[in-house]
Amino acid sequence: MTPAGEEEKETGRLEAFSDGVFAIAMTLLVLDLKVPKSGEVDSGGLLAALFGQWPMLIAYLASFATILVMWVNHHRMLRHIRHTNDTFLYLNGLLLLLVTFVPFPTALVAAHLRDSHARTAAAIYAGTYEALALVLNLMWSYAAKGHRLLGSQVNAAQVHAITRQYRTGPTLYLIAFGLAFLSPEASFGFCLLLAVDWAFTGSLTRLFGEPRLQM
Amino acid sequence: MTPAGEEEKETGRLEAFSDGVFAIAMTLLVLDLKVPKSGEVDSGGLLAALFGQWPMLIAYLASFATILVMWVNHHRMLRHIRHTNDTFLYLNGLLLLLVTFVPFPTALVAAHLRDSHARTAAAIYAGTYEALALVLNLMWSYAAKGHRLLGSQVNAAQVHAITRQYRTGPTLYLIAFGLAFLSPEASFGFCLLLAVDWAFTGSLTRLFGEPRLQM
Amino acid sequence: MTPAGEEEKETGRLEAFSDGVFAIAMTLLVLDLKVPKSGEVDSGGLLAALFGQWPMLIAYLASFATILVMWVNHHRMLRHIRHTNDTFLYLNGLLLLLVTFVPFPTALVAAHLRDSHARTAAAIYAGTYEALALVLNLMWSYAAKGHRLLGSQVNAAQVHAITRQYRTGPTLYLIAFGLAFLSPEASFGFCLLLAVDWAFTGSLTRLFGEPRLQM
Amino acid sequence: MTPAGEEEKETGRLEAFSDGVFAIAMTLLVLDLKVPKSGEVDSGGLLAALFGQWPMLIAYLASFATILVMWVNHHRMLRHIRHTNDTFLYLNGLLLLLVTFVPFPTALVAAHLRDSHARTAAAIYAGTYEALALVLNLMWSYAAKGHRLLGSQVNAAQVHAITRQYRTGPTLYLIAFGLAFLSPEASFGFCLLLAVDWAFTGSLTRLFGEPRLQM
Repeated sequence: MTPAGEEEKETGRLEAFSDGVFAIAMTLLVLDLKVPKSGEVDSGGLLAALFGQWPMLIAYLASFATILVMWVNHHRMLRHIRHTNDTFLYLNGLLLLLVTFVPFPTALVAAHLRDSHARTAAAIYAGTYEALALVLNLMWSYAAKGHRLLGSQVNAAQVHAITRQYRTGPTLYLIAFGLAFLSPEASFGFCLLLAVDWAFTGSLTRLFGEPRLQM
Repeated sequence: MTPAGEEEKETGRLEAFSDGVFAIAMTLLVLDLKVPKSGEVDSGGLLAALFGQWPMLIAYLASFATILVMWVNHHRMLRHIRHTNDTFLYLNGLLLLLVTFVPFPTALVAAHLRDSHARTAAAIYAGTYEALALVLNLMWSYAAKGHRLLGSQVNAAQVHAITRQYRTGPTLYLIAFGLAFLSPEASFGFCLLLAVDWAFTGSLTRLFGEPRLQM
Repeated sequence: MTPAGEEEKETGRLEAFSDGVFAIAMTLLVLDLKVPKSGEVDSGGLLAALFGQWPMLIAYLASFATILVMWVNHHRMLRHIRHTNDTFLYLNGLLLLLVTFVPFPTALVAAHLRDSHARTAAAIYAGTYEALALVLNLMWSYAAKGHRLLGSQVNAAQVHAITRQYRTGPTLYLIAFGLAFLSPEASFGFCLLLAVDWAFTGSLTRLFGEPRLQM
Repeated sequence: MTPAGEEEKETGRLEAFSDGVFAIAMTLLVLDLKVPKSGEVDSGGLLAALFGQWPMLIAYLASFATILVMWVNHHRMLRHIRHTNDTFLYLNGLLLLLVTFVPFPTALVAAHLRDSHARTAAAIYAGTYEALALVLNLMWSYAAKGHRLLGSQVNAAQVHAITRQYRTGPTLYLIAFGLAFLSPEASFGFCLLLAVDWAFTGSLTRLFGEPRLQM
């Protein structure tokens, strides 16, 4: 009953709203960087006090880059999607819930990476990204199955390329999740590496034979 | 005096601005999740300390899902509306005021669900959603009365379907409000159930013979 | 050198960016509402503890309504403007600076309305709105002078109507500013009255013979 | 394979998303302005207590104006760009990372401008802007090299004018960075002067023979 034109506009709104959530979640991360007060700075000076916050600085960088990559993936997916329905909206809502949640595990891993709770914190951090990657895959599988929500101009080769590319995320974050129990630092470092690599260079994922993300 | 094209654009701006408020309110909810410090974690470990925050985690989930449902409803309504006037803007402003307010009752119910103030907190939580549902109904009644602000393509059956669907919200949240005085936990749980059901499955509202929300 | 079409698009971006700032400033206001902890609630109960926060609740309402009115005015103005230049951007930047500043005097007046600093706090609160109203008037005077930045379809009667309407703001907030030194509560109450009246009913400004705001 | 129209739309999304990040970062700055509590205000009164916060107030103004200038530059650049690719997205992501980071050095310089850590704080503050200016230059050089990502309507004179104009930023912030080690106050004041001048008057940069920024 709705002409194609109106449905495209619906997708536009879904994207604009999702973009807002992505942008705000990325910007809120800075609120966890704490300015050391004069009394808290010892003889090493301010620079040393700031470097003492390195887990938070690195977690900020890793989370920023990861949300950026998720945003690029989200847009890439929605460029191929013309129709929406309830189930797709449900999955998108779940993705946004996880995106807004990211600042919490970020602060958690930064606070506990150097104490006895490092394993739990690193596992929750990697687990959040595993969940994000899984929901992104679910959204794409659902939309692409039988060409359900795709535009008519999307061909099978494009669908296959995206499907293959998306598949690496859950596998790699599962490794990061497992690593958390062996070495929290290694797990956290692996998450950072994945985010920076995906966002910026793409060389690691090319080892898996995947093409670079194109927005 | 204004051609239809320009009025449509006005509605577009109203929506974009409202979308911003909805997206930010949803994302700010995460700021109330507190990272337990090392000294605050007892022998049960970090995971136990986090589960001890369950009221906040559940309130976060419930409020996120409720704002998401309100956003879907808001968009659904505005798809049928072509014109705006002062009264409609007044009602939309009132809706946005309540949307930005949601993080406060969310933190309130999370902080007091397990102490002697649970009834008051749960009643304020359910009462906020009752107010949101009432304002949404008011907006629709006002816009639809005598086809006041609707586009000419909207027919009576569509108006009736939305009217019936919107009517369940105030009734159900009134039940949640009343429940707060008998059992705060039940009231809070009912709000969560409503949000998750509306956002994700729609099975409960179908008991009332209502169709699922379509964006 | 630039065709009219491209300049309209520039105005669109300016508005979208400004909308974002307005929406975020409105939503951040809720962060100053504090949830009373269990130990802070005395025998009067949670509801009494919340009502004890009335200056913050009312300041929240007043500031929300005022930013909403400023947003409506901003949009109304930009509907008539087709061109931008450096000076107009400078004035818009100044307006946005004041909009993002609003949460600060809001928290200030809420914290000090009942202590010996009430006069200073109320004067800063009213003074911020005076500055906002003045910058809005400056933007319009600059744009309308000699039809400088207006679209060709805007006629002299429309310009005159907006000019007259905008003129009431600085006058009324100057009264609120002066009132702060006589009675901080009266000044604060007057600001609230103005915001609610402008946002919602328009009856007070009609006493001055002004038409209602139309978005 | 992608028609020009679709690529323009991609740039539009990139801009809308970037706009969101700029707007949020600018608005979050206000969260660092602290309301002095009654007990913290001495006999000098509230106004004196607020003026005692002058480093934060000035840092707020300087950072707001600087992000505004960066936003104007970002838009100006993207008006000339029609195509995007991975490297350009990488650079834009880096720019947004630095934009979201600005509230941190802002709070840092405000907290330490009057203690023994002033040099470090002022150097980090100026250094952040140096990095922002460098990334903006990198984006433009990359896009403009061999007309790589530019629209076909952009001519060599326009490219040259922007290139010359952008070049002043890194030079001036390098001076501010160096000044931090001689006089932190002078460095901070120079950053403020640059931001206010670029945002509002453009007279200083005209000394260098550069035309004013045009949005």
